[in-house]
Amino acid sequence: MSNPDPKGRGWQGAKPMQLLVTLAVGCLLYFILPRVAPVPDAKLFAGTAAAKAKPGDKAAKPGEKVAKPADKPKPAEAKAAEPKAAASAKKPSAKELEVQRIEAEAKVKFEAAAKAKADAEAKVKAEADAKAKAEAEKVRQADWIRGLHLFAIFVATILGIILRPLPMGAVAMIGVGLTAITGTLPIGDSLSGFAEKTLWLIIVAFMFARGFIKTGLGTRIAYFFMRLLGKRTLGLAYGFAATEFVLAPVVPSNTARTAGIIMPIMRSLARAYGSNPEDGTARKIGAYLTMTCFNLDLIVSAMFLTAMAANPMTQKFAADFGITITWNSWFVAAIVPGLVGLLVIPYFFYKLYKPEITETPEAVEMATAKLKEMGRPSMSEWLMVAVFSFVLVLWVIGEKAFGIDGTTAALLGLALLLLTGVLTWKDVLEEHNAWDVLIWTGGLIMMAGFLNKLGMIPWFSKVVGASMAGHGWHFGFLVLAVTYFYAHYFFASMTAHAGAMYAAFLGVSITLGAPPMLAALVLCFFSNLHASMTHYGTGPAPAMFGLGYVPIGTWWRLGFMVSVVNILIWVVVGGAWWKVLHLW
Amino acid sequence: MSNPDPKGRGWQGAKPMQLLVTLAVGCLLYFILPRVAPVPDAKLFAGTAAAKAKPGDKAAKPGEKVAKPADKPKPAEAKAAEPKAAASAKKPSAKELEVQRIEAEAKVKFEAAAKAKADAEAKVKAEADAKAKAEAEKVRQADWIRGLHLFAIFVATILGIILRPLPMGAVAMIGVGLTAITGTLPIGDSLSGFAEKTLWLIIVAFMFARGFIKTGLGTRIAYFFMRLLGKRTLGLAYGFAATEFVLAPVVPSNTARTAGIIMPIMRSLARAYGSNPEDGTARKIGAYLTMTCFNLDLIVSAMFLTAMAANPMTQKFAADFGITITWNSWFVAAIVPGLVGLLVIPYFFYKLYKPEITETPEAVEMATAKLKEMGRPSMSEWLMVAVFSFVLVLWVIGEKAFGIDGTTAALLGLALLLLTGVLTWKDVLEEHNAWDVLIWTGGLIMMAGFLNKLGMIPWFSKVVGASMAGHGWHFGFLVLAVTYFYAHYFFASMTAHAGAMYAAFLGVSITLGAPPMLAALVLCFFSNLHASMTHYGTGPAPAMFGLGYVPIGTWWRLGFMVSVVNILIWVVVGGAWWKVLHLW
Repeated sequence: MSNPDPKGRGWQGAKPMQLLVTLAVGCLLYFILPRVAPVPDAKLFAGTAAAKAKPGDKAAKPGEKVAKPADKPKPAEAKAAEPKAAASAKKPSAKELEVQRIEAEAKVKFEAAAKAKADAEAKVKAEADAKAKAEAEKVRQADWIRGLHLFAIFVATILGIILRPLPMGAVAMIGVGLTAITGTLPIGDSLSGFAEKTLWLIIVAFMFARGFIKTGLGTRIAYFFMRLLGKRTLGLAYGFAATEFVLAPVVPSNTARTAGIIMPIMRSLARAYGSNPEDGTARKIGAYLTMTCFNLDLIVSAMFLTAMAANPMTQKFAADFGITITWNSWFVAAIVPGLVGLLVIPYFFYKLYKPEITETPEAVEMATAKLKEMGRPSMSEWLMVAVFSFVLVLWVIGEKAFGIDGTTAALLGLALLLLTGVLTWKDVLEEHNAWDVLIWTGGLIMMAGFLNKLGMIPWFSKVVGASMAGHGWHFGFLVLAVTYFYAHYFFASMTAHAGAMYAAFLGVSITLGAPPMLAALVLCFFSNLHASMTHYGTGPAPAMFGLGYVPIGTWWRLGFMVSVVNILIWVVVGGAWWKVLHLW
Repeated sequence: MSNPDPKGRGWQGAKPMQLLVTLAVGCLLYFILPRVAPVPDAKLFAGTAAAKAKPGDKAAKPGEKVAKPADKPKPAEAKAAEPKAAASAKKPSAKELEVQRIEAEAKVKFEAAAKAKADAEAKVKAEADAKAKAEAEKVRQADWIRGLHLFAIFVATILGIILRPLPMGAVAMIGVGLTAITGTLPIGDSLSGFAEKTLWLIIVAFMFARGFIKTGLGTRIAYFFMRLLGKRTLGLAYGFAATEFVLAPVVPSNTARTAGIIMPIMRSLARAYGSNPEDGTARKIGAYLTMTCFNLDLIVSAMFLTAMAANPMTQKFAADFGITITWNSWFVAAIVPGLVGLLVIPYFFYKLYKPEITETPEAVEMATAKLKEMGRPSMSEWLMVAVFSFVLVLWVIGEKAFGIDGTTAALLGLALLLLTGVLTWKDVLEEHNAWDVLIWTGGLIMMAGFLNKLGMIPWFSKVVGASMAGHGWHFGFLVLAVTYFYAHYFFASMTAHAGAMYAAFLGVSITLGAPPMLAALVLCFFSNLHASMTHYGTGPAPAMFGLGYVPIGTWWRLGFMVSVVNILIWVVVGGAWWKVLHLW
């Protein structure tokens, strides 16, 4: 070939092995499951019947119409006979007795005729019912097959997100396509996830995050708290906690927040104190800050609906069960255990993983110098603060006070940022994270939603729930929640984990009798906290681990211990707080 | 201030004057319209009642249930009385006559009681009906107000797209937000446009277009036709026509296609022939090619659903009227007048705007050299061709043969491009045009859709239709279509034009009695062809005009003449073809 592909940069398509495994598992499930899994009993698996009751009314009505007239006539005639009986009770003469007798006979005749008529109608009704039942059964069986097919595509998608033959978004896009290509769902349903309001809440939050980074406001806030609290190492850690807490509500990428804003500051600070992983000085201060900052990130991620990209996904999964978690109700439930966590974690590491340097007066100087260098906040930063505060207020009280939805409030904020030029439309279009999230969240939300609508998740919940019954929900739910938590050892992404397991575990919990809102929230919180154990559990983990301050064994050992502390805090403190909130 | 905003690049927010006008018009309409526009007669404006019939069944049912039992008893009793009458006809003895008399009396009594019962029930039913009617009237009046509010937001959005205080996408996003913020629509409805399947068809088509440009395949096709047909200037023009025709089905940005792929080649060719606008040699060949290429672009834009970003929007508007235009039905209806147009236009300009150079042997040499330089097609290009052909076949026959929707086929193609690495996920995320289109198309589709659902467009169509009635639909529709066409003098964007006028004009056309499918298609085609008249009518117009080969007066003069030719071709040839297709 005289001219090799000028764009050739090696193979850019799917990684073959990973693709093969994903496709093999998907195809196997897709083709084998419907053969080996018989349609469950109608009590356990209702198919779309329940969901259809709303849009499908029309189909169900003819049957009802036949039924109603057949049921009603009886009381009508019974009533019609009453006044006569009452009237004839007055004067019982011979003639009248005769008349009464004949009338009574006539009545019997009428009633017999009416009964015959009713019986005939009942027969028609029974036939119609039987026919409708047979049709419903057909639909139910078809739903089961569709459900199994969708499950196969869903598993392959989640497996693809884990094995990554292609980036997560591409895998999800292909998964969405497959639901339509295989005819499992109509194309309109396949795309329905892309209009979800919580999804757009997170997309707009990504734009806010861009504003925080673009204007330098995020960095300024970090230095502000460093100057305020940074005299000692422990204070520094609390400064980072405060920064995370302030940024979290509008920075839904925990990678952008922790690896993007916090990490550079933390790293330069550690180096300024002569703590470098290369020369054995990691334990001076860098190792402590690494572990602390990483774990603080997870706690604040659990505290706000908008603090982590996958949170609205779990919120939507809960909504599929009829559980409405608003921005405000999430925040209120999480604030107490969350704040306790933010207080405990820095101290926990301070005791168990003590830094050699405990006094850090230079940090204050460094922060002061940096802030001076940054100068007074620009107009853009002030506008960012104003819009941010405004949206935050709306998120906290808007729903209850003015009926303004969280997404509506976010759109209002975005409009203000665009109108004032804090963000340009180019910024919005170039915020690729947001479009990535649109695709994968939209895809996963759609699939899990239809697994629910097709009756698969309710079926699974009933079957597993039945096998676990008998211990009361407290014990059962705790086992489920902790299992859900530690399953994260097998996941490299919070999204993949929540996508794969959240809906099923919530369903089983509810079947066991756990209060739905409590169960939904606990699983939402755990969907963030569970990432502490490994160095690959979520985006910032490999970034922070990659700094080299913390050896892998230490990371895992401390990670496990933190996980226990977190579970204790959220179960004990959280449990008490949720009792106060009447969540159980 | 010691440190001015480092990101400060002047005011990046909304242009104040344009914003002020847009907001002023919007607010005026929003607050004044509901005061001055009384709720129209129920015959003209039904509100959401019609649309609600499906999801709102439940609310309507209680009334029905009351009605049914009251209606049925009569025939039931009438029938019950029959067998008795037949039995008593046999032996009319005195005793029996007496019995019959008493029975008849009893029957009268029973019937009177039944009648009283039925009357009582009818009364209850009438009361329930009156109540339901009053409630429906309340809803209808509220719909009118909501409709006016949505109309105000819609007009402001279209005005914003025309005046551009911010880029189109930002304006549409703010418009979407406003529908929710003002409470005109629930947030879920406001976002519903983002899940439209035709919208995703165009988004995926943008990815295909990126593949064509990234792999160099688009340029190669242009040179291929140039080598094949480029011996004479007229042949060159037909070569460009062929290129446009081949690229159009999967390059939905006419700007990318014409200004991105065709224009650079055309320009370098003109320069190679010593035709430069600066030295008075424009008429040598450059001016002819400019006008021809620009107008060819508009014709192919009209030929395929996926050839222009706004086409799926008009298709969706038609769908709101219950008119289903598939990729294939669009293509079939447009192919004959389209091909005639592609044949006529180069010749038309060749006669009216003759180039000085008519023989171009060097063009063939240039194309040959360029193709040699490009070498043999890369693997990516072959894959692109394969996937493109596959998707094209599915678009043409997939719907009928396999029931595969156009969007599903497109998603399948995208999956193949991603799996084979022709496109990376990064390419997809960085295709900003697609995300821009997602926002503005999604926003406009949603607004027009709800204007329809709320009953505004049907109302407008009835009112205007009534005032235009009496000439037969042929005349009325022609007037409407031509008015729609020439209204483009006032628009700088095909999208703004179609967004503002398409749905209303289609509604009126249907009211006048025009065959719905015919009317929908003609307005779809005209939504592309109408851009010929001005140098600002669509994206590539300013780009091509900006080359400087054609003076503004000539552009407008020739543009108007071409518009007449186009209308004639599409009305006469198209009309005949659509008669063959039984569209009228």
